[in-house]
Amino acid sequence: MNYDIVPLNELINQFARLPGIGKKTAQRLAYSILEQPPERAHQFADALVNARDQIHFCKCCQGLTDLEICRICDDEARDHTVVCVVEEPRDITAFERTREFRGVYHVLHGVISPLDGIGPEQLRVKELMARLSDGTVKEIIMATNPTVEGEATASYLSRLVKPMGIKATRLAYGIPVGGDLEYADEFTLARALEGRNEI
Amino acid sequence: MNYDIVPLNELINQFARLPGIGKKTAQRLAYSILEQPPERAHQFADALVNARDQIHFCKCCQGLTDLEICRICDDEARDHTVVCVVEEPRDITAFERTREFRGVYHVLHGVISPLDGIGPEQLRVKELMARLSDGTVKEIIMATNPTVEGEATASYLSRLVKPMGIKATRLAYGIPVGGDLEYADEFTLARALEGRNEI
Repeated sequence: MNYDIVPLNELINQFARLPGIGKKTAQRLAYSILEQPPERAHQFADALVNARDQIHFCKCCQGLTDLEICRICDDEARDHTVVCVVEEPRDITAFERTREFRGVYHVLHGVISPLDGIGPEQLRVKELMARLSDGTVKEIIMATNPTVEGEATASYLSRLVKPMGIKATRLAYGIPVGGDLEYADEFTLARALEGRNEI
Repeated sequence: MNYDIVPLNELINQFARLPGIGKKTAQRLAYSILEQPPERAHQFADALVNARDQIHFCKCCQGLTDLEICRICDDEARDHTVVCVVEEPRDITAFERTREFRGVYHVLHGVISPLDGIGPEQLRVKELMARLSDGTVKEIIMATNPTVEGEATASYLSRLVKPMGIKATRLAYGIPVGGDLEYADEFTLARALEGRNEI
């Protein structure tokens, strides 16, 4: 005999399919939905469907947007001569939070990783090259992650763009602000020494 | 100027309203929805709406069900003379997982907590009394949580039912199976000593 409540199990399963959400957490989240007024569940459902159906990649930067060209690419006030190349759309949010960067972005949607069968053709490199062809862009900032694959992708792209007379730069390595030297790994510390600045 | 993607922010906010989900996790979950095929988001949305609209409280035990009387209360094969009284619907799931209990349940939907203004009238005590009135029930097992409020509720209810000739029992206290004595607190250990059994 099975005492399961089918719609509840279905909801638990849906939560459990989210990354980092285990069975127990999924259960807790599902029960919390049942404890809320029905409007809340409906709002949540609408938000899911709307986000998935309305958001797609910007034709220009390949970031996420609900418009044809995203608000950043479409903004005349931004510096379109500097392109910050990132791995994933969420990285744009991280840079925007700094409120320091006034250029535009390009999302690769991954990094070169031969072991996973991902080469430049699998990434949005073609789209980046198309953007660079009209001569507007003067600099690309390689803001891929500080991993082996991120490094390889950065150096691959910089070799591609340099012959076009475009400056390629890389984010600085060093100790994180507010961090503790005691916990800094030797590679980071070595890079921080190497890149030291006069004060 | 605001570069926010409205439907994405709305989805992040919805995730962030779930218990134990912070802003960062909400962001990660929302992006994961965008990375999945649209059907997934639609299935998730359906599951939310179905669960919230179809699930309500069982007329008998006050647990969750999508039927009028839940599958447990409706099961003739179960022992309807023993009622396990729990705080929340999710506690039923915990007991059902043991596969040991063959009786039925009653959900109080909370515990007596004078500081929070919760007395017996705010709980499903009236419904419990109505169930006990026909003389079928011989024993109620107080399975409220081992907290001050849970204890108070258990002793309040046992005082109510004893004059009706119904046996009131309480879950045993002791060391958890698979636990380590070193980490057992003194109160638990004292109770485990007190309730020791001959082997």
